[in-house]
Amino acid sequence: MKFNPVIEHLKVYEPGKPIELVVREFGIDPKDIVKLASNENPYGCSPKVTQAVQESAHLMYRYPDDSMMALKAGLCERFGIDDDQLIIGAGSDQVIEFACHAKLYGGAKILQSEITFAMYQIYAAQCGATVIKSPGIAHDLDAMYALYKEHEPEIIFICAPNNPTGDSLDRIDIENFIERIDHDTLVVVDGAYQEYAAFKDPNKAIDPAALIQKFPHVLYLGTFSKAYGLGGMRIGYGIGSTEIIRSLYKLRPPFNVTTLSLVAAEVALNDQEFVTMAIEDCFKQMEDYKAFALEHQIEAIESYTNFITYRLDGITDSTYIADALLRQGIIVRDLKGYGLNAIRITIGKAEENQRFFNVMKQLLNSGQE
Amino acid sequence: MKFNPVIEHLKVYEPGKPIELVVREFGIDPKDIVKLASNENPYGCSPKVTQAVQESAHLMYRYPDDSMMALKAGLCERFGIDDDQLIIGAGSDQVIEFACHAKLYGGAKILQSEITFAMYQIYAAQCGATVIKSPGIAHDLDAMYALYKEHEPEIIFICAPNNPTGDSLDRIDIENFIERIDHDTLVVVDGAYQEYAAFKDPNKAIDPAALIQKFPHVLYLGTFSKAYGLGGMRIGYGIGSTEIIRSLYKLRPPFNVTTLSLVAAEVALNDQEFVTMAIEDCFKQMEDYKAFALEHQIEAIESYTNFITYRLDGITDSTYIADALLRQGIIVRDLKGYGLNAIRITIGKAEENQRFFNVMKQLLNSGQE
Repeated sequence: MKFNPVIEHLKVYEPGKPIELVVREFGIDPKDIVKLASNENPYGCSPKVTQAVQESAHLMYRYPDDSMMALKAGLCERFGIDDDQLIIGAGSDQVIEFACHAKLYGGAKILQSEITFAMYQIYAAQCGATVIKSPGIAHDLDAMYALYKEHEPEIIFICAPNNPTGDSLDRIDIENFIERIDHDTLVVVDGAYQEYAAFKDPNKAIDPAALIQKFPHVLYLGTFSKAYGLGGMRIGYGIGSTEIIRSLYKLRPPFNVTTLSLVAAEVALNDQEFVTMAIEDCFKQMEDYKAFALEHQIEAIESYTNFITYRLDGITDSTYIADALLRQGIIVRDLKGYGLNAIRITIGKAEENQRFFNVMKQLLNSGQE
Repeated sequence: MKFNPVIEHLKVYEPGKPIELVVREFGIDPKDIVKLASNENPYGCSPKVTQAVQESAHLMYRYPDDSMMALKAGLCERFGIDDDQLIIGAGSDQVIEFACHAKLYGGAKILQSEITFAMYQIYAAQCGATVIKSPGIAHDLDAMYALYKEHEPEIIFICAPNNPTGDSLDRIDIENFIERIDHDTLVVVDGAYQEYAAFKDPNKAIDPAALIQKFPHVLYLGTFSKAYGLGGMRIGYGIGSTEIIRSLYKLRPPFNVTTLSLVAAEVALNDQEFVTMAIEDCFKQMEDYKAFALEHQIEAIESYTNFITYRLDGITDSTYIADALLRQGIIVRDLKGYGLNAIRITIGKAEENQRFFNVMKQLLNSGQE
């Protein structure tokens, strides 16, 4: 059968076994598995959210409120934006997908930093777009600007803080960059980890309302997957000018988030106390990761997120370490696929982190391979 | 800002207020609202599903198992298919979306019956495809074949049973039709209501494994939204040849169904007793709808689903009736938008149906407007 030639160039996604199952095959008790791989909130979500979802579970048979009235009202109040400046997606991922389909056609291009969130280029490739990358481990805005002038991409992606490195541009630098971008180029500012960055350093904090007020060509992305602890419920959002949101809405399938995801996000948004507790503990725990890195001469990238990236050049091989950790039940993310000899570790609870330190120490002391 | 010209022709989706809210504005107590509009299972989902979801609610922070191992194993066993002949989507809707993006590009066409599930043409339009329609209220396979020869569409959609009319083609007629379609044309057989049809009449029952075995160019669609009572959880599936499924997988975003949707579907699949109870009661209740129609000289389309369509030509206006019902707290679907002077009523529980009959009787007796 003949398919769209665009997809013939796409890699087939081969879903592997759940990694917990792999670990169990090493004879490890499920309760001893420590998962520090997906930047999930180790505290889960707010107990109020769990309770609300339990109480609403009998409503699973009802199609979701497709106007998403209650959640939209909550987000509009939180950010000081209008209803028509907001779109809710099945994760902010889906908003990226809408943006790609809205802007990319007929030999379009996107521009991104070399090492950043993988989904930008995956969705762009689905639209047949070319991906231009500025080199370097961090966003290099000067290089990005030069590439923008050279290639005239339809979309520029900025991830602040950046995944999978954890560092973050300052808000002022992002704004100065965007100011120089013409208004027909969509600038996506992905703030998936903004709650963490804003807590740690006001210079990194982005106010979506102020940003889109200044720049009609910006789409800001936020999510309930990280600080709010709802990664499994697939719910995020995009904030932008009425013109942009209106176009993305044309591509939104009806009922794109579940009935229980809406309930969960509504309640989560109202329990800031829980979110603040989790973020405070995250940065407290991160001090131990920084101390461990220092002690073992590992370069830890300064993180504004709920994970930390250890660069292992000159020390060991990231794939070896990730595999060796796995065999002891500790799951981290090897960044070799991103072209980095590094591992990304989600900050867990104290006892989980201690497990990581103990095993990592053994591995480093026993030398590589 | 310039957008993909394809989307400039798309209608902006204007999400209205939740209809329950509209009804409440008429001063109706929420507990008196009877919703017979979205073909939801009036019994909800199995209590075992509700319980399993409540017990898993604390896992909402974990990303879903993206291999969907457990659910895929369950569906493979149920249907007697292989893992690589199956794809799971956020509702079967999302599988339609994948199919459109996989097959439709550069002036493509789809072929469908005039009055059928609205999402086929919505996703096709997002891909810039032309929609060819065979005329008539039911699928006219001879007319469809003639249009197929004339237009050579990339996808043909067959909805069996058909939504929003409730009638269904016989399996043998569908097979005879597909046999004449070349293998480069994708034939989508949408079986969203198959559980109902198969229960009522074995001639309507489709065995997906046998179908795709015979026809490598068929994609069969199923859903947990209807008989399984999980419309709010957005989970459905596509069954097809390895070649088709492999191509659709390239377009599947990771984590496209939620953690709790997976749990719900797994448990739902194993409680066939609940499903059978709901289907039995549905057809028992439907007898009352047929009797009511007969009594009031309304033409009710013979239904193989969990809804019934009343044609109102020569009796009254469907929009008037739907609005008048709404003002008394009864929500049904007006089919004027499909070009039919008809209302589609989801079969509810006995007491809900009685409310409908009482009010409908009043309205018919009081005459139109």
